[in-house]
Amino acid sequence: MKKLINSPDSVITDALRGMAAAHPSLNVDVENRVIARADGPRQGKVGLVSGGGSGHEPLHGGYVGYGMLDAAAPGEVYTSPVPDQILAATKAANGGAGVVHIVKNYTGDVLNFRMAAELAEDDDIEVSSVVLNDDAAVEDSTFTAGRRGTGATVVAEKIAGAAAEEGADLATVARVATEVNERSRSFGIALHAGTVPAAGKPGFELGENEVELGVGIHGEPGRERGQMAPVRDLVAYALEAIHADMPVSGDVLVLLNGQGGTPLIELYGAFAEAAAWIEGHGARIVRNLVGNYITSLDQAGFSVTVTSLTDELVRLWDAPVQTPALRWGR
Amino acid sequence: MKKLINSPDSVITDALRGMAAAHPSLNVDVENRVIARADGPRQGKVGLVSGGGSGHEPLHGGYVGYGMLDAAAPGEVYTSPVPDQILAATKAANGGAGVVHIVKNYTGDVLNFRMAAELAEDDDIEVSSVVLNDDAAVEDSTFTAGRRGTGATVVAEKIAGAAAEEGADLATVARVATEVNERSRSFGIALHAGTVPAAGKPGFELGENEVELGVGIHGEPGRERGQMAPVRDLVAYALEAIHADMPVSGDVLVLLNGQGGTPLIELYGAFAEAAAWIEGHGARIVRNLVGNYITSLDQAGFSVTVTSLTDELVRLWDAPVQTPALRWGR
Repeated sequence: MKKLINSPDSVITDALRGMAAAHPSLNVDVENRVIARADGPRQGKVGLVSGGGSGHEPLHGGYVGYGMLDAAAPGEVYTSPVPDQILAATKAANGGAGVVHIVKNYTGDVLNFRMAAELAEDDDIEVSSVVLNDDAAVEDSTFTAGRRGTGATVVAEKIAGAAAEEGADLATVARVATEVNERSRSFGIALHAGTVPAAGKPGFELGENEVELGVGIHGEPGRERGQMAPVRDLVAYALEAIHADMPVSGDVLVLLNGQGGTPLIELYGAFAEAAAWIEGHGARIVRNLVGNYITSLDQAGFSVTVTSLTDELVRLWDAPVQTPALRWGR
Repeated sequence: MKKLINSPDSVITDALRGMAAAHPSLNVDVENRVIARADGPRQGKVGLVSGGGSGHEPLHGGYVGYGMLDAAAPGEVYTSPVPDQILAATKAANGGAGVVHIVKNYTGDVLNFRMAAELAEDDDIEVSSVVLNDDAAVEDSTFTAGRRGTGATVVAEKIAGAAAEEGADLATVARVATEVNERSRSFGIALHAGTVPAAGKPGFELGENEVELGVGIHGEPGRERGQMAPVRDLVAYALEAIHADMPVSGDVLVLLNGQGGTPLIELYGAFAEAAAWIEGHGARIVRNLVGNYITSLDQAGFSVTVTSLTDELVRLWDAPVQTPALRWGR
């Protein structure tokens, strides 16, 4: 499996050099692997930090900027960042009003973010952690006790970032992120596994007629192997799984996300089916994102995230955001 | 090769239904395959229209909106739109001040846009056509007499769109698009071919150690098959080909583009190498885009486009744009 890299060892460093060269709005510490806002931290503003294994780009570094994250800590591919690195990101985000950690529920991430939070408290930085676990596919998984954190992370980072930007206090920023998590469910389906550069071959094998139903963002197994089917049926399978867990009703936000190797023309086709299914069930899509927002390297497939909205969440979603990967309204 | 589709026959229709559902800012005529601004046409404004075969998303439909295209005509996958369809897009873009056609240099596109322009003139719509042929890789190709139009199309649509938005006349809008074309060169390298849905298998075969150097955006052959190499060397090969054709100097815009199947983490690594090469040659990257902007379905690989900037081009590049795929400054 060919990869557009120099060597598996330099993938993260090279990507960070590229981000530094591409985005003057970011302060990229290539050596320590911290991506922060060049104009931060802002005194009196709650800081917002996330991180996790790399390979999910644009998550998280692509969401650092006005109205979203203050800093991100990218680990090795599919590997948690280390506590010192998360601590450095926390300090880079600290404006004296406390820092919220957005943590996807994987055992390594949870442990390392907790350790970093303790180190930060030693430095008199108050930290509030919100753990995302929106994946409706499975309880417990390869890297996770409990449910996995997936697509809702993007929504939580946008909405909590908007709250922090408008001056909300630490408890409020953490509360809206928690609300997004509680009001969101996700489900992913893979057609072809992604390839970790150091492994050099796809993470799992699927037959020409097979799909992985409920796949995780690191290629972890889902509920079952299923037969390849028209996108209409695959989207319906995902939405039925979500609906069984949290009824899809009222005003919703839908993230129709690509896993990295599926072209946009197919993602729009999938979104058409999601829209038809959701409207057919009496709910209303009032906000959406279609594209590659939380990926699994070059994996082919999609995930769908449904967030049940409130007026407050819509208002915060619509607030201006200026990051490499999400930009509007300013 | 699994595709996230209902059937090869419905790919374009399904994608257009998805775009219609996702983007209330667009007026998507699914049946006639025209994507136009919902708020258009604006009286007295020069219209800007493009189109071509589908499979290059977000090109062109994703660039319809404030400050960029007024309408787009998507053909079947890798197949030119028909004249009536281009005519309908032209009418949708017509505000009485003339319409500029942005045409990528492929024989079918050139013929069908020319025919549409003649039909439009019969309806008293003045049309000025700008043909893009920025690909430095080869003269003449599978679908093309002369050089192919590739990445510079994105730049031309942005810059001409900004000129039209600020009230420039027909000649001026056409002139800035022509300038972008003349001042731009592109070169693409594929690691793995994309799959046309109706074909069901990759468009060409590459060995595990091979790359296609100078590949076209429909998988057309490039200059030669080369050995797989570190991204540093592949990027240098592309930039040397560009530099030999048009010296890379002064202030430049660089589009480091993914072909659809290459993850963002790798594209940033490629951009790091492009930045190092260009700065090493004494030029300066003052604007950039890194991501999937003109794709070839799920093809793995990248292309690089270098545009030599002028003060006018920088100003128009920086002007506000609000489209599904490109958004800033407003």
